[in-house]
Amino acid sequence: MKQKIAVLGPGSWGTALAQVLAENGHDVRIWGNLPAQINEINTYHTNRHYLPDNKIPDSIVAYTDLAEAIADCDAILFVVPTKAMRSVAQQFAATVQNKPVIIHASKGLEQDTHKRISEVLLEEIPETHRQAVAVLSGPSHAEEVINHDITTITAASTDLEAARYVQDLFMNDYFRIYTNTDVIGVETGAALKNIIAIGAGAIHGLGFGDDAKAAIMTRGLAEISRLGVAMGANPLTFIGLSGVGDLIVTCTSVHSRNWRAGNLLGKGHKLEEVLENMGMIVEGVSTTKAARELAQKLHVEMPITQAIYDVLYEGKDINVAAKEIMLRDAREENEF
Amino acid sequence: MKQKIAVLGPGSWGTALAQVLAENGHDVRIWGNLPAQINEINTYHTNRHYLPDNKIPDSIVAYTDLAEAIADCDAILFVVPTKAMRSVAQQFAATVQNKPVIIHASKGLEQDTHKRISEVLLEEIPETHRQAVAVLSGPSHAEEVINHDITTITAASTDLEAARYVQDLFMNDYFRIYTNTDVIGVETGAALKNIIAIGAGAIHGLGFGDDAKAAIMTRGLAEISRLGVAMGANPLTFIGLSGVGDLIVTCTSVHSRNWRAGNLLGKGHKLEEVLENMGMIVEGVSTTKAARELAQKLHVEMPITQAIYDVLYEGKDINVAAKEIMLRDAREENEF
Repeated sequence: MKQKIAVLGPGSWGTALAQVLAENGHDVRIWGNLPAQINEINTYHTNRHYLPDNKIPDSIVAYTDLAEAIADCDAILFVVPTKAMRSVAQQFAATVQNKPVIIHASKGLEQDTHKRISEVLLEEIPETHRQAVAVLSGPSHAEEVINHDITTITAASTDLEAARYVQDLFMNDYFRIYTNTDVIGVETGAALKNIIAIGAGAIHGLGFGDDAKAAIMTRGLAEISRLGVAMGANPLTFIGLSGVGDLIVTCTSVHSRNWRAGNLLGKGHKLEEVLENMGMIVEGVSTTKAARELAQKLHVEMPITQAIYDVLYEGKDINVAAKEIMLRDAREENEF
Repeated sequence: MKQKIAVLGPGSWGTALAQVLAENGHDVRIWGNLPAQINEINTYHTNRHYLPDNKIPDSIVAYTDLAEAIADCDAILFVVPTKAMRSVAQQFAATVQNKPVIIHASKGLEQDTHKRISEVLLEEIPETHRQAVAVLSGPSHAEEVINHDITTITAASTDLEAARYVQDLFMNDYFRIYTNTDVIGVETGAALKNIIAIGAGAIHGLGFGDDAKAAIMTRGLAEISRLGVAMGANPLTFIGLSGVGDLIVTCTSVHSRNWRAGNLLGKGHKLEEVLENMGMIVEGVSTTKAARELAQKLHVEMPITQAIYDVLYEGKDINVAAKEIMLRDAREENEF
């Protein structure tokens, strides 16, 4: 059934997801706070900074006014950067008049609180103003989705009916949705894989081979799974689309910002240069800090995350850090 | 402590592992049944058909006589193709005079019986002529190992002491060994990932993108894990080096034969042409048949394996098979 949906956050992923929804026949509006960008979407049906060669369906209307964008919507899709999530959720809670389903498709952990995104949303949006919260996550590049390349993704909610509702909203011939009820596993996998993507990029930039790349991805998956399980996730979720699937696509595709940032670091560039060069948020940089603090709090060993933290925040030489990681004592493999 | 070790099977992987052992200071001998190849190894210290630009350490001696090769050895490493494993194990059992540790590093399932390689070895080599059986498996290319690129790998045995012995034999600065006791999980992961590598290669050859590649790898991992669990494996082993690690390296590296075979199939070549073109065994082709039979016997759903079987053995059009796989009903993600 045709639904009315507001997409908050007109970055590359928000735009691509809005297009999927519009192509599925829904009434889609986009909200953002940069008037020039919103005007570009409404006038030229493009969003060139994020998706240069893309044509946005004419049926999508963009707004800078949140109240207008969300009015009477059946579902709201949050796709703002992690660091903006809480304030956008607060604005939303202060504005919303009905009880829409809340979905998000962002990947990160809140700085300082280390909270998952659905936790932030649940805290800021009272039950009187929402139905269930769901997360959409999986191996996906906006650049491929707008091109109708086949993409598989997980819709997770502790409420399976809500997950199925999200599955129905998005499912079509090229966008394939699997449901899951392990929100903690899906969100932690999505956030933490960006750390490993930085590491895999660095390994490549430093000149290591395919065996080393597979090693850092696999041992990285082991340590993010350990942290996820300590946070309450089902370990099997890490073997799924939002875990290893997203890890694979992020660590092996030229589209990934986190991988590209790591690669530049590996080639000897400074962090400031790298971030300037990207021109978009590199979520993995702040996620590394949050994960390292969580690991200390929960007493989980995360040597790769620690090494990346040392390089990003403590000025450690990346060659030294890589060598130390690779020559750690090998041990038993299953440490759950 | 210096050990005397015979490597049975002078292919690329057997040769690379023999070199690791020789560089670690062990007394290493190679056995093979092609006099010209054995003569080349002893005379020129090369094995050009498998590793064109490689120099084999002078200390390694090659034999065509099995009794000479294995005399007084502390450990025997079987690296022959799966289809030759039983007959070589029989020859070995009829010849051996002492009780060496048995290690193998081959990846496959026996045709018709569907047995794992350690099962074949245990059946053919009586306890009076062996100590524990261990398996060595992980994301590794012979071409990178001989180049001293960093590689991580799992040594598994139901006897943890035997796994640690194998770890000690192989461990050095560039070859990093993790122990595991889940032999079933390690062997099934190693064998079955070759099926998914054919699929991932085909997806690439057919022109699909990175999202689809990650999808087939992830959903492929899910189905080989399901079969492995039905065979008695720990599902978490599939998240490790011999599972997802090996899957990643096999599906994303130009060195992989199974991926290359799939890629050629995707580009429209016939199976016979492809196999001729490779000039080496493509284990995944026979493993697909064995896995499909096992899946039917154990009532495990393996849609990707079935589709690849249909293409390889039933002449199904690969475009049709790929489309059907991609448009299957999506469902709940964790189906263990």
